[in-house]
Amino acid sequence: MATNLASKHQTTLDTAVRALHERTFFAHYPENPSPEVYGENADKEGREKYTSRLDNKFDELLQENPENWAGQEESPYEQQPLGIKYPFFAPETLISRAEEAYHQWRKVKPADRAAILVESLERMKARFFEIAYATMHTTGQAYMMSFQASGPHAADRALEAIASGYEEQTRFPESTEWEKPMGKYNLKLNKSWKAVPKGVALVIGCSTFPTWNTVPGMYASLVTGNPVIVKPHPKAVLPIAIVVAELQKVLAENGLNPNICQLAVDADDRLITKELAENPKVKLIDYTGGTEFGNYIESLKGKTVFTEKAGVNSIILDSVDDLDKVAQNLAFSVSLYSGQMCTAPQNFFIPEGGIKVGGETVPYEEVVQKIADAVTGLVNNPKAGPHILGAIQNPATTERVKGAATIGGNAVLTTCDFSNPMFANARTCSPVIYEVEASNKESYSRELFGPIMLIIKTKDTDQSIELASDMAREHGAISCGAYTTDPVVKEKIMDEMSLAGTPVSFNLTGGIFVNQNASFSDFHVTGGNPAGNASFTNPEFVIKRFTWVGFREPVVG
Amino acid sequence: MATNLASKHQTTLDTAVRALHERTFFAHYPENPSPEVYGENADKEGREKYTSRLDNKFDELLQENPENWAGQEESPYEQQPLGIKYPFFAPETLISRAEEAYHQWRKVKPADRAAILVESLERMKARFFEIAYATMHTTGQAYMMSFQASGPHAADRALEAIASGYEEQTRFPESTEWEKPMGKYNLKLNKSWKAVPKGVALVIGCSTFPTWNTVPGMYASLVTGNPVIVKPHPKAVLPIAIVVAELQKVLAENGLNPNICQLAVDADDRLITKELAENPKVKLIDYTGGTEFGNYIESLKGKTVFTEKAGVNSIILDSVDDLDKVAQNLAFSVSLYSGQMCTAPQNFFIPEGGIKVGGETVPYEEVVQKIADAVTGLVNNPKAGPHILGAIQNPATTERVKGAATIGGNAVLTTCDFSNPMFANARTCSPVIYEVEASNKESYSRELFGPIMLIIKTKDTDQSIELASDMAREHGAISCGAYTTDPVVKEKIMDEMSLAGTPVSFNLTGGIFVNQNASFSDFHVTGGNPAGNASFTNPEFVIKRFTWVGFREPVVG
Repeated sequence: MATNLASKHQTTLDTAVRALHERTFFAHYPENPSPEVYGENADKEGREKYTSRLDNKFDELLQENPENWAGQEESPYEQQPLGIKYPFFAPETLISRAEEAYHQWRKVKPADRAAILVESLERMKARFFEIAYATMHTTGQAYMMSFQASGPHAADRALEAIASGYEEQTRFPESTEWEKPMGKYNLKLNKSWKAVPKGVALVIGCSTFPTWNTVPGMYASLVTGNPVIVKPHPKAVLPIAIVVAELQKVLAENGLNPNICQLAVDADDRLITKELAENPKVKLIDYTGGTEFGNYIESLKGKTVFTEKAGVNSIILDSVDDLDKVAQNLAFSVSLYSGQMCTAPQNFFIPEGGIKVGGETVPYEEVVQKIADAVTGLVNNPKAGPHILGAIQNPATTERVKGAATIGGNAVLTTCDFSNPMFANARTCSPVIYEVEASNKESYSRELFGPIMLIIKTKDTDQSIELASDMAREHGAISCGAYTTDPVVKEKIMDEMSLAGTPVSFNLTGGIFVNQNASFSDFHVTGGNPAGNASFTNPEFVIKRFTWVGFREPVVG
Repeated sequence: MATNLASKHQTTLDTAVRALHERTFFAHYPENPSPEVYGENADKEGREKYTSRLDNKFDELLQENPENWAGQEESPYEQQPLGIKYPFFAPETLISRAEEAYHQWRKVKPADRAAILVESLERMKARFFEIAYATMHTTGQAYMMSFQASGPHAADRALEAIASGYEEQTRFPESTEWEKPMGKYNLKLNKSWKAVPKGVALVIGCSTFPTWNTVPGMYASLVTGNPVIVKPHPKAVLPIAIVVAELQKVLAENGLNPNICQLAVDADDRLITKELAENPKVKLIDYTGGTEFGNYIESLKGKTVFTEKAGVNSIILDSVDDLDKVAQNLAFSVSLYSGQMCTAPQNFFIPEGGIKVGGETVPYEEVVQKIADAVTGLVNNPKAGPHILGAIQNPATTERVKGAATIGGNAVLTTCDFSNPMFANARTCSPVIYEVEASNKESYSRELFGPIMLIIKTKDTDQSIELASDMAREHGAISCGAYTTDPVVKEKIMDEMSLAGTPVSFNLTGGIFVNQNASFSDFHVTGGNPAGNASFTNPEFVIKRFTWVGFREPVVG
């Protein structure tokens, strides 16, 4: 069966590998949740399927003999528990099952592994709408983002990891004849090489992007032959549970052990992440989440670790063509999912002398006001606000926004009150804005997760660049937006931010935002600053998951 | 000028990249030190040049204003100081010069960097003989190995690193236009990417292979745009000093700062390796040497580290066609450079019931005797012994061999006395052999650097495999030799040793030995066990030296 899958998906795989290197637009999974693409009833059926799960056991996994059933999700839109229970397994059970599955999975050829994994994404595609509702009611993302980020965009990031892993494992010959002229005779050796997977892999998910941030590491470890234990955040299990269940079914259909990929949930009274991570049999760990736990993961000995932690993202404003368009673009970026994105901008550097707009200087105060007005306008637009802001995943985020006044800056926009007309009980919060002095470095030197904008008044653009680059170098950054019409300034920003390992989006206006990044084109996180040590999906993201081992023997005869 | 070099060396580079992927025999630098290849007087001139350096200052480097002059090399053949003095610079001077050079070198395009580096290898080629004599009289290697390992083989390993780094940096487009259909319009972005070098690199050399083990990391860091500080072992400076001097000249000729690659020697009263390694500005470290210092290097925070430490290499004897040929091959492997190679075998696993030879069982005792006889025969052969054994680099090695009796095994061959007819004062030592029980694991669980063979009597081949694999997993291994005519046993050895990250050479007899490995074909060290975390030259060896950073901007108009 794997062989049939290999021919079924070879074109997809080849196209994906080519796309990795062309880095032009490529998407295998359409991002538009339209009936024309996904079927007339797909949305309705997905919603019904999601609803039918509430207060029930999630019984789709092929992992046998659970010790218990556990679940602690609750909807940010309803502020009510979902009541879904998942099978619980002790870490030692998960690891011994993974070890057993390892010795089967590692012997499957990379091309066959890739085909099986692509097939699982096709099955996931059939459940994008159900995953979307599951994502909404665990993360608080609005409907469109829930669909796109957890569905097609996640599947494309997974396909990217599969393609990259497949390519890297087939970049050297399986075998060759080596013939060295020695003068009087030739020395001949048969040589062969194996890409040997490192062993049990653990993937630790986050609460805000339960599939998008989980599938790259999960599929990267799987395609390179490692069995995977997926450990979701206890508040966001369902979206990835569906993905794991679909993969397990494909594995079983192909005569393989479904424990090649297991779901691991915490029990209500037993958090298992550290126990799993510290187990010496766990060789690979992917982690997305806060810096403190990420640093702990990075400090574990004898593991290969891939992290995405927190960053302090900057916007540098120097000169623009159309300030209104820029303000609207930035207002969208800080409002999108109420700033709960690792790519959301936080620190806005604006020179005290103002910025050039179409050649004329617009004073600092006016620039700040324009941005504040754009945020207010967007939040108060009933056709936009609720669909962009979504809900707040964690009550701690609302508290952080409400406590932002203690930063000590000048308040520009303080109320985060916002009501979602569709969900009366939703936990919501719109962006607040504070102005701080460049000299008050402490106030803007850490990630303030959520919809908090800090406007930092600088001496000039040179200081803006210096501070943005310092922040990235010292505290990490995943994105940077810069606005300049001056090619010399642009070159300087590129140079300084590149040394700080931070990608830069220049002069974005209209329908593209600094928070967004595209599979097969934008590397997500560079690995080059404290925001994370890994990147979706550069070659390093896959090749560190296996070891090249060679064998040789004289040619007989 | 760099442009001329780029066209001059493009074919070499393209051929080398192709060779990396074909992994058939390829060598750009001929290993035969014959007058037909290198010129009638090359050897004589090289020797004279070497001799003229003794008791003089090494004044070829372009590093200005030395603080002092220092040198502590001595010849293992003469047991006399060489008296060569090298310029000494304080670590802070070296690092600030490297930082300055960084900002020039990182802006040179990868293709131009590669061309400049290949040119430096061509200059090195013109000095292979001088480097050979320098290597003999620092490491104790015999003449042929000194020439090959420090000359052509090292240059080919360097070329391999250059080719790999060049390939990896050009694997993604410099820029592209990204166009996403949005329904009513297309979203267009200009995108570009930079491979951003990580910063100051330190390469720490060892005393036994001063160029071969240094140039891969050195050239890998350089081709990816990082300035390099080469810190040789204080007892083996001259061979690599010549290489660095040649590279500095090529850099200067091309209008570049020669401090892009600096030589850093210890002062007699100030060891500077730790100071350099711990400096936060040092981002990359390559290290070859003992395990203890290697573990310290690996434990440093905020660095990307590439290590080759010690391993415990095994030979597994199961069944052979011709025992005499096997014994001769193994005797050569343990005698070559008196076992002072990281690839030399140490632990010989032989089943107590003996091994099959052409279908007949030969008892254990007879196998041991054959090997001992082969070693004695080789050592006592005046045409072979001195040219294979060379001299002992470090007096501690001789002490270790003399103290091997304390291991507690049964002595098979205890005298290591050996006189070199060409060098009456040479520090020499031929292999000793001890038999130990498989149960006495402690005795064979660490590297006994030098010509020490341990024969371990096992229950059967399964136990031999298990122990060899355990040793590799727990204590590291760089090579493994296995002799079996049984395909099932062979498959098992491949599988078990691959999981222990150890390459296996099967059934070697004649002119190829387990210690040898070939550039462009054999990966040296896998990175998959405690013997080291890096591999010459897999993609990981180069891509961890830079960060991919992307830039994007809407297409105007």
